[in-house]
Amino acid sequence: MQRILSDQLPYQAGRPVTLSGWIHRRRLLKSVAFLILRDRAGLAQVVVAEPHARAALDRLGEETVVRITGQVRENPAAPGGFEVVQPVIEPLSDPAEPPPVELHRPQLNAGLSTLLDHAPVTLRHPSWRRVFEVSAAVVSGFRGALTESGFTEIHTPKLVASATESGANVFSLDYFGTRAYLAQSPQLYKQMMVGVFERVFEVGPVFRAEPHDTSRHLAQYTSLDAELGFIGDHRDVMAVVHKAIGGMVAGVSTVDAVVPEAIPEVHFADAVRMVGEALGEDLSAEPDLAPAHERWLGEWAAREYGSDFLFVTGYPLAKRPFYTHPEPGREGYTNSFDLLYRGVEVVTGGQRLHRYGDYLAALAERGEPADQYEPYLQAFRYGMPPHGGFAIGLERFVARLLGLPNVRQAALFPRDLHRLTP
Amino acid sequence: MQRILSDQLPYQAGRPVTLSGWIHRRRLLKSVAFLILRDRAGLAQVVVAEPHARAALDRLGEETVVRITGQVRENPAAPGGFEVVQPVIEPLSDPAEPPPVELHRPQLNAGLSTLLDHAPVTLRHPSWRRVFEVSAAVVSGFRGALTESGFTEIHTPKLVASATESGANVFSLDYFGTRAYLAQSPQLYKQMMVGVFERVFEVGPVFRAEPHDTSRHLAQYTSLDAELGFIGDHRDVMAVVHKAIGGMVAGVSTVDAVVPEAIPEVHFADAVRMVGEALGEDLSAEPDLAPAHERWLGEWAAREYGSDFLFVTGYPLAKRPFYTHPEPGREGYTNSFDLLYRGVEVVTGGQRLHRYGDYLAALAERGEPADQYEPYLQAFRYGMPPHGGFAIGLERFVARLLGLPNVRQAALFPRDLHRLTP
Repeated sequence: MQRILSDQLPYQAGRPVTLSGWIHRRRLLKSVAFLILRDRAGLAQVVVAEPHARAALDRLGEETVVRITGQVRENPAAPGGFEVVQPVIEPLSDPAEPPPVELHRPQLNAGLSTLLDHAPVTLRHPSWRRVFEVSAAVVSGFRGALTESGFTEIHTPKLVASATESGANVFSLDYFGTRAYLAQSPQLYKQMMVGVFERVFEVGPVFRAEPHDTSRHLAQYTSLDAELGFIGDHRDVMAVVHKAIGGMVAGVSTVDAVVPEAIPEVHFADAVRMVGEALGEDLSAEPDLAPAHERWLGEWAAREYGSDFLFVTGYPLAKRPFYTHPEPGREGYTNSFDLLYRGVEVVTGGQRLHRYGDYLAALAERGEPADQYEPYLQAFRYGMPPHGGFAIGLERFVARLLGLPNVRQAALFPRDLHRLTP
Repeated sequence: MQRILSDQLPYQAGRPVTLSGWIHRRRLLKSVAFLILRDRAGLAQVVVAEPHARAALDRLGEETVVRITGQVRENPAAPGGFEVVQPVIEPLSDPAEPPPVELHRPQLNAGLSTLLDHAPVTLRHPSWRRVFEVSAAVVSGFRGALTESGFTEIHTPKLVASATESGANVFSLDYFGTRAYLAQSPQLYKQMMVGVFERVFEVGPVFRAEPHDTSRHLAQYTSLDAELGFIGDHRDVMAVVHKAIGGMVAGVSTVDAVVPEAIPEVHFADAVRMVGEALGEDLSAEPDLAPAHERWLGEWAAREYGSDFLFVTGYPLAKRPFYTHPEPGREGYTNSFDLLYRGVEVVTGGQRLHRYGDYLAALAERGEPADQYEPYLQAFRYGMPPHGGFAIGLERFVARLLGLPNVRQAALFPRDLHRLTP
């Protein structure tokens, strides 16, 4: 008999069915036993009363994979309103060892480090699994919104000849006798590809040799990147961010996040002034926002605009990368932005320089040699339109969306200062 | 005036429009000049007769980015049947230097190495750009087919603690004081995730420190991976391959590839016998097919079945990785397969072992220590269903689909033994 999934039981009432999955939980009472079966669609209750099936179940621990053939019966007390009775239970795996984490509990209560050590098992828990269902939906929403807007998907090199963002925090390796680096972002490649497709996006891993052991840092994360040409300024990029974020949140029906029709904006200079006044600090010389300042701004946006989202624009040049476009008529500021979601930065973007001479000047200004960028700066010698783009850290976004305290809970097998397995 | 794309001209006949893009080609005749503008939608002809516009065009070389405002006029002789007249030409970039490759020619005739050195410019050529439009469509088709079949997208670590496929061809690096490796495939991760989602796929980079300088090898390529649980044997995996390949080809309307309703199959033992007889070679002791043998089989499939595709099944265990499931009742063979497309292997897959004890035995048999795999083999201690999967090298598939002689032509910025830039 062909296997059905647990969520199909209501359509098979009174009929024989075959289910397959993991023994999520056993309740072995004296006269009867209950087996909760877990498959990719959810959970199903199986009532084990017959001696032969009971003997089989007694031998098979939680997480053993089984095939169950039985009759579907309506039972308002069962999860989902239906259950399987008169089961024949057939193991598809060896009897499982007792799992290192108690998957049948509503919440896993071991420490994060233990849970991550046992990630192949931990991830089977519905609450953990759900994070990565949300993650997949978010990525799908990102791609859908951009594809609809004429963007082309690209796949760029992760092995590069020079560090793109700065010399710090970069992994290096021997590449057939020369030195290579793991890409910290697809920045220069997505810009080059504006010269080809005008509008491009990439979903891929980026690598940061972060020496920080915090709840926000990972050594590898998934970056959602986009870049587009023929913009007026960074506001055209922000419009695409708005659309992308809308798509990302729309795909996740189980989360009550709302992207407003217009996302409020505040200029960095005004943000710093407001935060400084509110917190009684002199921030006039600050080139960046500290996490506490972002939190305050998040609360302010919720209070003033009823919005979970807030664009902060015009960040000082001192804190932005060399390719950032200055703000016309406002010395020291840039056509850049961050998007805060509930007081945490989840998107960074802006307008980029697009003239070759401007790149040479910007690199000279920062004391960086232009030759190491020359293979990439070619694109700018041969005509590039005004353009800009943005990047979203998938794990950080999902963690924020679900209210997870640690970004590691949104990374499938997180990599950090101390963790390289499993 | 809002910019329109070149393919919108027919809908604007007689009206004023603004186009933006690159000067693809100039033809400067005495009385009139023609400007071919390139944007992401295609090419548009602009007729430059007015002295002011002509003076502007004389100064702006090919690849300069411009905005053009003019009137649309029907002209059956123009590409697309419409052209822009009375243009005002405004540069959006500095005047471009003369490009290192002649983008306005129908085909680029420089050597491959030169073209790749100038990839940021080369890729702008319509024939090169098309390769990556096809690539994006193929990936989208792959995802679509699998999503429709209940697969969940995952993103797995590219930094791992041990080489997954074999000790050879692996890049290694210092990871906060310990040794890490770049993942050669997501194999063990996608298997672990069968325990979570039953059906998973991933599109991501994989890394091979290939010391071979051939037309088929890359140091980084994009792997399309899938894995599914609750299979009978490898045939259930082949059915998913069939569907995925169908989706990949269906997205590419400009290619005349046909995936037959049933893909023919031949067992490795029969394949070797047929090839040996046909070529007059004794292949009875061969554990693998050489490229010439695959070519012969491709021709045979075309001749016998009218099919560009052929499954070869049952490859000898000696040539398959340790996780491969043996073929029941046929010593030395496995439940594995390759899919040949026009005589070249484009997909590899099969059923995997799913019992913990079988993994320990398989690793011992090959003299590999089990401890380095222990963090990953956890999944198998705690119940895993019979499962299998497959992998497709995106660049190789696209190269074959488009008849490109070198896989580098299907890699956006290829990485190989000698190339780490641009």
